[in-house]
Parts: sequence; structure tokens; C-alpha cells
Amino acid sequence: MAISFKVIKEDTESRARLGQLETPHGTVQTPVFMPVGTQASVKTMTPHEVSQVGGEMVLSNTYHLYLRPGHELVAEAGGLHRFMRWDGPILTDSGGFQVFSLGPLRRITDEGVTFRSHIDGSELFFSPEISMDIQMALGADVAMAFDECPPYPCSYEETRKATERTTSWARRCLKHHNRKDQALFGIIQGGVHRDLRLKSAAELSAMGFPGYGIGGLSVGEPKPLMYEVLDYLIPAMPGEKPRYLMGVGSPDCLLEGVARGVDMFDCVLPTRIARNGTVFTRDGKLVVRNAEYARDFSPLDPECDCYACRNFTRAYIRHLIKANEVLGIRLTTIHNLRFVLRLMEDIRTAIAGNHFSEMKTKFLRRFKTD
Amino acid sequence: MAISFKVIKEDTESRARLGQLETPHGTVQTPVFMPVGTQASVKTMTPHEVSQVGGEMVLSNTYHLYLRPGHELVAEAGGLHRFMRWDGPILTDSGGFQVFSLGPLRRITDEGVTFRSHIDGSELFFSPEISMDIQMALGADVAMAFDECPPYPCSYEETRKATERTTSWARRCLKHHNRKDQALFGIIQGGVHRDLRLKSAAELSAMGFPGYGIGGLSVGEPKPLMYEVLDYLIPAMPGEKPRYLMGVGSPDCLLEGVARGVDMFDCVLPTRIARNGTVFTRDGKLVVRNAEYARDFSPLDPECDCYACRNFTRAYIRHLIKANEVLGIRLTTIHNLRFVLRLMEDIRTAIAGNHFSEMKTKFLRRFKTD
Ligand SMILES: [Zn+2]
Ligand SMILES: [Zn+2]
Repeated sequence: MAISFKVIKEDTESRARLGQLETPHGTVQTPVFMPVGTQASVKTMTPHEVSQVGGEMVLSNTYHLYLRPGHELVAEAGGLHRFMRWDGPILTDSGGFQVFSLGPLRRITDEGVTFRSHIDGSELFFSPEISMDIQMALGADVAMAFDECPPYPCSYEETRKATERTTSWARRCLKHHNRKDQALFGIIQGGVHRDLRLKSAAELSAMGFPGYGIGGLSVGEPKPLMYEVLDYLIPAMPGEKPRYLMGVGSPDCLLEGVARGVDMFDCVLPTRIARNGTVFTRDGKLVVRNAEYARDFSPLDPECDCYACRNFTRAYIRHLIKANEVLGIRLTTIHNLRFVLRLMEDIRTAIAGNHFSEMKTKFLRRFKTD
Repeated sequence: MAISFKVIKEDTESRARLGQLETPHGTVQTPVFMPVGTQASVKTMTPHEVSQVGGEMVLSNTYHLYLRPGHELVAEAGGLHRFMRWDGPILTDSGGFQVFSLGPLRRITDEGVTFRSHIDGSELFFSPEISMDIQMALGADVAMAFDECPPYPCSYEETRKATERTTSWARRCLKHHNRKDQALFGIIQGGVHRDLRLKSAAELSAMGFPGYGIGGLSVGEPKPLMYEVLDYLIPAMPGEKPRYLMGVGSPDCLLEGVARGVDMFDCVLPTRIARNGTVFTRDGKLVVRNAEYARDFSPLDPECDCYACRNFTRAYIRHLIKANEVLGIRLTTIHNLRFVLRLMEDIRTAIAGNHFSEMKTKFLRRFKTD
């Protein structure tokens, strides 16, 4: 078994839980947020900086690495850990989300998906087996099954077909995957349809994956609807396996996800908004590139312990961003990742200390969402 | 006196010399190379990283800071050191080079230069007095006199006029400048005309500046011509004052400049070519973005001690650059600056150990230039 997962403590007032995920590259405390290194790099950061802000496990994208530089090259470099110089655990997604997001350019059959490269337009093909081969070559600690991720909204009938295909593809992934030092997680689909979600959970659970992704959420549906799905889905998932809510990373959703029993998260949001000059503070988002901060000589967030906040002012960071200086987006990225990773630390401390619900209420009361 | 300069040792086989430049923000060993932080940031780097690669003194651009974020804002932030969080010495240029490079957009009179902002096209005016006011507000350790920098090639008559104007403007700068914790350096012009260079040197020297820039070189003339000018100009400059060759930073020119008695250099070259995917090695330039390095799992330069070379491969850095990942140009920038700053360390060690000429010959024999 490449990984093992242990639930250490369960909250009494919610489904929140503390866990430990052991991987070939170290042990991760859960609930965990995984920064995204799409192209084998967490945008603008060195691996050492990711570690400094509290990153323990990162996600990288199979679709992107397959296109550039190619999984054979990564394998030749000694695998993804050595290639990108990240010695901690890595999870790769299956490429499914990306090829399905390419919209009209793709064609889906039971065999797999034909799509066009967003780089040069060439026609390419992904199947469960190909996704497994690529992910085995990349050599992350956790690989994800190749699934069909329907958009939102999506009709019942379409969602039903995608969910069935996801089950059948999960079986093929399981059959084809044979790398012993890599865990393969299944992905539960079913959109926002209760019976499909429960069916998918039951079918995937029966296959005995060492962990489960919750796919097809955070794809445009209202947040209350996502929470509702989690409310009925998570009790139907195996309690002893890690539960990974894919593509979720706003502070409020992290808290709500943890409260519903999620152990793992990933999202580009904190790093993406950083590059637009938007940072998290305890009071909500702050658009530091706005003119009102031109002469603001206080840190991005006075309560933050990150390198950016310990050394630089909003005025300076705003100047850098306006002047297109790379250091500007480096500093906002460091800050946002630190904000989210520290929130996860606070969440774990609160669960351990039996005051998670109180901590959650307090945070959400102050943190303004859009 | 804001700064003091001491020659510690003179080479016996060349005009190379070791010196110490004391400033309000610390002492710098010369010959020194100053990384350029055009817009109050050495592109892609934190001030701590600049320090880590061996940077001791940085240059920032008056023209750019005047346009954005404005010198009043920088003064309000507590001056340039505090604004950009660089606690070591800083030198600001006069803005002259930039406004004269704007070409047909500018109009020169004895009073000053009318030019258009490269950002919004608005009409602006610089005079010696205005340049002094801006530089005093920025508060660098060393300010530069506002000069007229003629292009190359330039007729004798045009160069003569520019040189005369430079002398008269230098006088006005000296009269207007009154910040006690800031040194003001004069700039010698005269193009590639021996008598004009010597006249400029004599006139500026008579004004008793605490240091002298050599302007109007490295503006497109052949390297041997630049060396020829240095050969006759430097003996005509005050021996006890620091000599600063502006805009020079290729490894071969650094060695040739030091050999001719230059104490200070600055140049965007190492950081600019880094952003194009070109790095220095002991054998010359290497274009790491080229396809031949796609599967090269060795460091950028096996003889380098920088962060990039200690941790990453050419293959990975090439991937990052091809994929437009900021980390790629961060790593090439760190490497190139380290290369140049380590060359300066080697130069100082060689002068101290009486083997500078040998070291220079050995370096240049191996280092291929274009
Ligand atoms: Zn911060
Ligand atoms: Zn290096």
C-alpha cells in the first residue's frame, strides 16, 4: 500500500476530523490544502518558498505536463519530485477536468476523449489507460482516476451517463494502474443529483480505492448547493479513507468543507487572484492594486506572519503590480498561500482543541465574501 | 561628506585597484558591480535574494521612479531604502540617459529637456535642478549630475555642444544639491573624441565632486573604441575619487574596465538576458531555452554556487521558460547576477593577491564573446 490514512480525532459538533496521510514522501496532517503547481511549478514560487509558507503536499496537472514537457521527459529526469525539486508528497490529477473543459474541441466515447492541445491545436486522445500511464510515469504519491466531469448546469440524463462512464473508467484505471509506490484515488461524480451521487459513491466505494476525490463540484453551482451535496454525499463515503474535495480553496468553502468531513483540498484561487493584485485578509479580499492603497504604508494583512507582510507595504506592492514588476505578484502569492495554509493550521488546532465550530463561526462572521 | 573613498591597493601590471566606498548605508568593496533596480526592484528578485547573490549596492532609475510611483510618494514612504526595503547603499542615475533615449519625442534647450512620458505620453520637463530635487527626495546614497548623453555615432560639433552643456548643468546641479547624507557624482561626457573627453574631465574635476561617472560609453560603439577612451580618459581623472563606468556589465567589459582603473559598474545586461533565457557560464553565454537543453539534467553552470545551480537542471529551467513560468526567469536572473558578482569577487581577490592580469587572461581565454 503506497499510502495509509488514519483518523486521529473526530469533532463532536460537526463532521470535521483530524487525520494523518502517510505517503512515500512524508506524512501530511489533514485537513490539508494542496497548492497547485500546474506546470511543475507553483506559479512564481520556489519549492522552498512553498514549504516556508506551510505547504506540505502539492498538486500538479497531468494534462499540462503531458503536453509540456512530456511525461517521458519527466520520467527521464527521475520523476516529478526530482524534476521540480519538491521532496514532499505530490498528487496528480487525471487530466479529465482539463480535457472536458476544452468544450467544443473535444469528442467523448466510451473508449476515451479526443481533444485538441491548447498549445498547438494538435489532436490528442486520453483514455483511462493513457491517463494511468502518464501518471505512473510522473510518479506522484497519489494519482487520480480518469473521470468524466460534467459541467454545471447539466441535465439529469447527461449527468447519469457521465457518472456511469466514470464508474466504468474507474474500473479500467484500477485494472491498469500497477505502480506500487503510488496510490490511486477514485473520483465520485453525480453532479447535484442526490441519487446519482449516492450511486457513484456506492460503486466507487465497492472498488476499494485508498482514497476518494469528490469531483464535479465548484464548477459554477451556488455554494449552498455544493454544501447540500456534501451533506448527503460524505456520510455515504468510506469513513476510514481520505476525502478530497477537488478545486475548492476559498477560505469560507474550506471551513464549510472541513465541517462536512473533507480531508483534502486543492485550488488555484489563492495564487490566481494574487496575480491579479487581490489578497486575502481576515476581513475578506483586498484589491491592493486599487488607487486607495497608493499611500498605504501598512502590510497587506497586519495579522499575517508571511515574508511579504513582515517586510513590505501595500504602497510598495501596489507600485510593483502597477509597474508590472514580478516581485509584486510573488509577494501577493506568498501572502495568499500563507493565508490559506495558516487557516488550515488554525482549523487543525481548533479541531484538536474542541473548538472548531466556534472558530469557524468567528472567522466567517468577520470574513466578507462576495 | 556623505561618502568617503579609499584606494587600498593598486595593481602593478594594470590600472586595476582595490577600494572601499563608505556610504551612509554601509561600506562597499570596489571594484563593484551594481545590480539595476529600475523601478525600485531588481527585476524578479527580493532585496534579500540580491544580497544573497552578493549584491552590495544597487542602482535605481530617477526617470522611472519620477513617473511611477512618483518621488513624493517615495519620500513619504521614508525614502527609497525603506520603500524598497534595501538597507544597503543605493545610487540613483539622473534621468538624463532615459530622457535623451526617448529620441524624437524630446526637445533640448540650455534650460533642460522637454520629453514625453513613455507611460501616458504626457509632456514633462527635466532640468538639472528638477533632477536634483527628485534625487534628493528619493534619498539614495549617491546621486548623479544631470548630463546630456549624446548618441553614438555623433558629430564632433554635436558632441562638443553636449559636453559644454554637461559642464554647465553639472555646475547647476552642484549649486542646487544640498542633501548632506547624499553624495553627488559628476558625469564626464565627450563621446569618443579625445580632446572633448579630456576637457570634460578637467572641467568636472575642477568642481571637486566626490566621485565621477563616465557617461556616453557603451551606447553602441565598438568595444575597442570604448577601451581606447578609457585608456586616455582615466589617467586624466582624479585618482583619489571613485570612477564609475555607467551601463557596462558584460563579463569581458568588466575585466577590461577594471584593468583600466574603473571602480564601479552597473548594467541591466545580466538580468535582461536572463529574462530571455540566456545565462552566463565560464565558457560564454548559453541559451538555455534552446531545444538542445530539453533533456540536459545538469545545472546551468556546474561551477556556480548559486541557488539555481545548486537545485535545478537546465531541462527544468528550460521547461519553465518555455511554459512562461515566472520561476524560470527568477532562476536565470539569480544565476546571471551571481555569475557577475562572483566575477567581481574573483577580481578583487586577484588584485589583492597580485595576480589580476593572469586571472583576466585566463578568464577571457575561456569566455567566448559574440
Ligand atoms: Zn502576509
Ligand atoms: Zn548559478
